Amino acid sequence: MTTVGILARPDLARAGATLQELVTWLCARGVSVRLEERTARLLTGGVPGSCHTASARDVAEGSEALIVLGGDGTLLAASHDLRASIPVLGVNFGSLGFLTEITLAELYPALESLLDGSYRFEERLMLRATIQREDRSEVMGDVLNDVVVTRAALSRIIHLDVTVDGLFMSAFRADGLIVSSPTGSTAYNLAAGGPILHPSLAAVVLTPICPHMLTNRPLVVREEAVIEVRLREAVEGDVHIALDGQPGLPFAPGDLLRISKSPRSVRLVKSPGRDYYEVLRTKLKWGER
Amino acid sequence: MTTVGILARPDLARAGATLQELVTWLCARGVSVRLEERTARLLTGGVPGSCHTASARDVAEGSEALIVLGGDGTLLAASHDLRASIPVLGVNFGSLGFLTEITLAELYPALESLLDGSYRFEERLMLRATIQREDRSEVMGDVLNDVVVTRAALSRIIHLDVTVDGLFMSAFRADGLIVSSPTGSTAYNLAAGGPILHPSLAAVVLTPICPHMLTNRPLVVREEAVIEVRLREAVEGDVHIALDGQPGLPFAPGDLLRISKSPRSVRLVKSPGRDYYEVLRTKLKWGER
Amino acid sequence: MTTVGILARPDLARAGATLQELVTWLCARGVSVRLEERTARLLTGGVPGSCHTASARDVAEGSEALIVLGGDGTLLAASHDLRASIPVLGVNFGSLGFLTEITLAELYPALESLLDGSYRFEERLMLRATIQREDRSEVMGDVLNDVVVTRAALSRIIHLDVTVDGLFMSAFRADGLIVSSPTGSTAYNLAAGGPILHPSLAAVVLTPICPHMLTNRPLVVREEAVIEVRLREAVEGDVHIALDGQPGLPFAPGDLLRISKSPRSVRLVKSPGRDYYEVLRTKLKWGER
Amino acid sequence: MTTVGILARPDLARAGATLQELVTWLCARGVSVRLEERTARLLTGGVPGSCHTASARDVAEGSEALIVLGGDGTLLAASHDLRASIPVLGVNFGSLGFLTEITLAELYPALESLLDGSYRFEERLMLRATIQREDRSEVMGDVLNDVVVTRAALSRIIHLDVTVDGLFMSAFRADGLIVSSPTGSTAYNLAAGGPILHPSLAAVVLTPICPHMLTNRPLVVREEAVIEVRLREAVEGDVHIALDGQPGLPFAPGDLLRISKSPRSVRLVKSPGRDYYEVLRTKLKWGER
Repeated sequence: MTTVGILARPDLARAGATLQELVTWLCARGVSVRLEERTARLLTGGVPGSCHTASARDVAEGSEALIVLGGDGTLLAASHDLRASIPVLGVNFGSLGFLTEITLAELYPALESLLDGSYRFEERLMLRATIQREDRSEVMGDVLNDVVVTRAALSRIIHLDVTVDGLFMSAFRADGLIVSSPTGSTAYNLAAGGPILHPSLAAVVLTPICPHMLTNRPLVVREEAVIEVRLREAVEGDVHIALDGQPGLPFAPGDLLRISKSPRSVRLVKSPGRDYYEVLRTKLKWGER
Repeated sequence: MTTVGILARPDLARAGATLQELVTWLCARGVSVRLEERTARLLTGGVPGSCHTASARDVAEGSEALIVLGGDGTLLAASHDLRASIPVLGVNFGSLGFLTEITLAELYPALESLLDGSYRFEERLMLRATIQREDRSEVMGDVLNDVVVTRAALSRIIHLDVTVDGLFMSAFRADGLIVSSPTGSTAYNLAAGGPILHPSLAAVVLTPICPHMLTNRPLVVREEAVIEVRLREAVEGDVHIALDGQPGLPFAPGDLLRISKSPRSVRLVKSPGRDYYEVLRTKLKWGER
Repeated sequence: MTTVGILARPDLARAGATLQELVTWLCARGVSVRLEERTARLLTGGVPGSCHTASARDVAEGSEALIVLGGDGTLLAASHDLRASIPVLGVNFGSLGFLTEITLAELYPALESLLDGSYRFEERLMLRATIQREDRSEVMGDVLNDVVVTRAALSRIIHLDVTVDGLFMSAFRADGLIVSSPTGSTAYNLAAGGPILHPSLAAVVLTPICPHMLTNRPLVVREEAVIEVRLREAVEGDVHIALDGQPGLPFAPGDLLRISKSPRSVRLVKSPGRDYYEVLRTKLKWGER
Repeated sequence: MTTVGILARPDLARAGATLQELVTWLCARGVSVRLEERTARLLTGGVPGSCHTASARDVAEGSEALIVLGGDGTLLAASHDLRASIPVLGVNFGSLGFLTEITLAELYPALESLLDGSYRFEERLMLRATIQREDRSEVMGDVLNDVVVTRAALSRIIHLDVTVDGLFMSAFRADGLIVSSPTGSTAYNLAAGGPILHPSLAAVVLTPICPHMLTNRPLVVREEAVIEVRLREAVEGDVHIALDGQPGLPFAPGDLLRISKSPRSVRLVKSPGRDYYEVLRTKLKWGER
């Protein structure tokens, strides 16, 4: 492990001191550090000479491991720039995250294990969204959480036809449809009434948003499943595809949205002393009331 | 009952013969008939001399009773133009509606009872949406179903502060919020997980759409409750207020949306031989599976 | 207000000092105090001569106001013994209750207002359960929360026919059915997926438990509604009626369970500085996650 | 394929003629037929000499393939007696089943493919329930649908501690807990709010029944997961473990219920012309309303 990238939430001013310490610690161990540009500005004592500063994409692409300081959103965004399945270590500043589960107290033990290769990790499935339009097929991107088809504020119901592995599954009249990985199952999927999928499960969940038909329920299929979605008819107002919560493309009748397992995944470094269920209990406040 | 308005779904071509017969029947009883303009075009034999043709608004405003041929959407739209609480008789062409529960077979018996004043009806609550913006307060309109605040496709979560009768109720981080009358409880509210409210219940239900906080549940309050909604902060993409599914206004931080009982209501003529639960069982397919 | 009853959760040892102080405070104001027998044993300094000790029933029946120390369960049980709509003041020892919302800090101000008649209260609807069996009709009791029909562990599905005001509403194939008052809406009803009803709402909610038919949804009706439940056929294992969580009677085909508004209600003394939504937010942890 | 067992729902009188024809058809092809005893009584023309009659268990254990006539419940019960993963062909008499998806019209083509080995099938996961009590561990049985821990009618809430693969997952205060296979996901699990799992998914779903904590949601884990359930404290009334809806054992504090993947599975013969989603759409009435 000779090159490590670091990326922080840009507005995380209080991360400055930690960042400085972290960079010093890594440099002292002969690690070459690549700092994302806006992250570099958080450094209280300036950027050490041995550090490279680069764009988020270059940091993600050119490192052998990535350290993310901030919340789940920061890690989610960073995951889109990764090219290979390098280890990603998410550090939270205050509130435990589903993705950023390493606390400051655990940071250096976790780094030790990262450098000596003894770190525990979870391989997290990514989903690939491809859009086919007039015989041209284009990869929209890979997501760690979810691909969501959703109506605009001004139209209420959209009519989606969904096939799985080429078999017609169902027509949904709904506000939209969430196709989520296990990682994304605790995000939007949960708010829409979907189940929690353990991160190690090789599966994808399809959850309709406010389905008109009350018997339309979340469906969990194998991760290898190829899911295809079509919009049956044009609606007043727009329909959009969002990737990990970021606006993707408008979706129109005739378009074919295909969601399948991405060839790449995220290798999430685990906290040495915390398992998934502890994160779940903490985030969902199980044990209370 | 000397003046009766008639309004049909404009594309309901097969209503032509029924309409002709209906007009003839009414004229033969000395009733003055007011036909909505596009409805008049459906008449197979032309508009009789004794019929007036007018805009939807004029038909709604100038009649002592209103006959609606079509589906629930047609009656919903017509309800917005009513000025007084005149009886409204909804006739469905095929599939039973929550609002258009009179079948063709029941039409003439129902009309007899309408003309001789012996008809059964339900007084249906309407809600009034008022927007207050920079010290100017404006009535947006009255709804029979629901007032919905909802995000655009491109932003995911909006943050709403809700008070009831001046008391802070909750902050919702959600896709939106539905404020529904008993009539609207079987519409969007049901898709979003809300309960069914019997039409005679003097109540309003607040149902969050995909709430981030899983303990946010639908809340049913008295119909006299004054509900105020504010958007806590601006979001990427727009937030909109929809009235009975129709686009209303954009909603911005600083705006205050107030929902309260409307001074007017809809007097829905009941089928002589069908009660609410039968409609419910038929529409929701209770008794099957 | 010359006679006040006091009832505490029997195992609430740490209530002893509060109780002693409370009794002294009331006696000093010339109030005649009636202590429930097991409550009297909690007194650290013995029962003052001016206090009467009596059974829970006699305390409830013979007082002009009732003070309950403990949790919601204690107040719920006490409510069953009340004969008239006397004010009930619920004091919690630690965790805020839906019914016991007065904290120790608020106790004496609340008592002052109780004695001088200036207290704020909410009139809480009670439901009456009546069972009719072979032409004999018997009042089972009044509930503040809910009447629940539920299967035994050994049978899975029961088949209930439900009418409302004499109209057939639906057949439920389910684990059971909850008929809940607004007060009970935050108890079992909430766990079964039912909505929250504001305590001031004159309504009753019918919520099926794990219905086989996915379109069976909670239904809210007027408090005057007369709900009748029948068991369509015998099942392996028993079916039971529970009143406020307490075992009532076995329920068999041929029995008719009638639930209607009770002639009595509970006059719950409100905290001077806390409204219903604050209790709701605290208990359901709204505002967190 | 030289020995085929046949088992019918005992009260399925109208299956008599079909059964007679079926037996004749099989015998004509040199197949040795084993008839379950009560099934044999349905034969309109008596049992042919070439047929053996045996107990359900012997039929299940001694055949190379099993034909089940009736509903899902009949096939579910039969699955418990299977020792090896022989093909099972479920024929429904009227209403399509999740397990008995072969119609009478498809019976002979399906049989042809069964005999010549060209049949399509799905390998359906079974779960094994083991109870450990005072250092003695005992296999309770294998289920095709679900293992359910549930309270008796007379107690409301039970307190379960659940671990997955030795890790503490959560404490549930609920009416009970369903541990379901993909096959069982459309049964009780669905009524309790759980998701649908495609039969090919190597997964198990844990769904709490009416959880007190509203954030307790269904959790899907890998089929290899070992789930352990303990009852935290005794409750009034009994707690029971049910296997595929059949009463199993009482469950007491100190007992340990372990649910893991069974070494055997059910090889369900597929209809030649019907895929899983078609069954789902038909059974859940997707496409209607």
